[in-house]
Amino acid sequence: MNKGEETRQRIIAAAAPLFNKRGYAGCVMKDIMAATGLEKGGIYRHFESKEEIAAEAFDYAWTVSSAHRRKGLEEISDPVDRLKHYIAGFVTRSAIPGGCPLLNTGVDSDDGNPILRERVRSALRGWRKMLAGILEEGIASGSVRPDVDVEKVSRLIISGLEGGMLVSRIEKNDQALKDAMEQLDAYLETRVRAPGVERKTSRSGTRPTYSHN
Amino acid sequence: MNKGEETRQRIIAAAAPLFNKRGYAGCVMKDIMAATGLEKGGIYRHFESKEEIAAEAFDYAWTVSSAHRRKGLEEISDPVDRLKHYIAGFVTRSAIPGGCPLLNTGVDSDDGNPILRERVRSALRGWRKMLAGILEEGIASGSVRPDVDVEKVSRLIISGLEGGMLVSRIEKNDQALKDAMEQLDAYLETRVRAPGVERKTSRSGTRPTYSHN
Repeated sequence: MNKGEETRQRIIAAAAPLFNKRGYAGCVMKDIMAATGLEKGGIYRHFESKEEIAAEAFDYAWTVSSAHRRKGLEEISDPVDRLKHYIAGFVTRSAIPGGCPLLNTGVDSDDGNPILRERVRSALRGWRKMLAGILEEGIASGSVRPDVDVEKVSRLIISGLEGGMLVSRIEKNDQALKDAMEQLDAYLETRVRAPGVERKTSRSGTRPTYSHN
Repeated sequence: MNKGEETRQRIIAAAAPLFNKRGYAGCVMKDIMAATGLEKGGIYRHFESKEEIAAEAFDYAWTVSSAHRRKGLEEISDPVDRLKHYIAGFVTRSAIPGGCPLLNTGVDSDDGNPILRERVRSALRGWRKMLAGILEEGIASGSVRPDVDVEKVSRLIISGLEGGMLVSRIEKNDQALKDAMEQLDAYLETRVRAPGVERKTSRSGTRPTYSHN
């Protein structure tokens, strides 16, 4: 990485929590200047517009959050247990100040900001694809019912978690997220897991204490 | 209503969709001046701060949305059918440009803006209380299982709808909201409705086409 690219990456990493917490309009150039120690001209040498910084910052925040939420996932062989572990991780872990970037930027970018909007859509598509992939693996291996609509279940998991996160954030406690997890777990056990497949004690059974979001 | 109060209300009504669409930082005084035809001084004669305007605008947007979503509710005698009708109304109706004020302002107000935050918390409390009241009525009349946790079910309805709305908004189609409605309907039928109570064909069975949000 050359010096210019290094500076660009440093600006993105510093801007990511600012945009995530304050939103697009609420994060002003002065904030990014203060966080990076750079002048406005030094920042705009690396980006064409504020929207480009915000778009790169969103991608960065999403990559960091997604990696954090997927921690330990590959160690779990059963696909339904893996989804339950993923859900528990979502409920209890937060990787970046300001909470879920998809919730923040999804709400923030729907009036104007077409570049940012497209990044959010793409992040959501990737998220759905990741969950659908686990379900398809389960169908192939026989641990998930063959008639499960993988698109619908993926969407329900995302909706349930994001809605629980919004309510938890407003109420400043984790009850809504815990309720969402409980409902999704029950849904996965009763409607998604193939009957006759023995339920393992998955790692999602251990529920660490709620942190933030 | 005297002239001063009339002007104040006119400012609130004009500011409500602006704040709801653009967020707190994204809605600037110039926007409110343009929408009302008033000078800055003429606006601040009626409010102490931008945050006060935003708080009143949120309450206005919430009152309008809530009334819109509750339309026709009192005509449905069975409490579970009433909840299903409410859910269908939420999915298909939008009262104010920019979509659900709780989703918008809940995300927008969690960093700073304590006055606005308190209004959002209060709106959520009121919403939960309204849904819990319907469930309690059902328990009293025997149409809802006596062991239903009314707080939990109210929270799940709100989380499910808000999460579905977020995903629908990002995807620009109503699939996530429809899926959320279907899941909530199934949950109400299997986990909330008292067994043995005959299921009526409720008005929520007619699903009008999706509009906005």
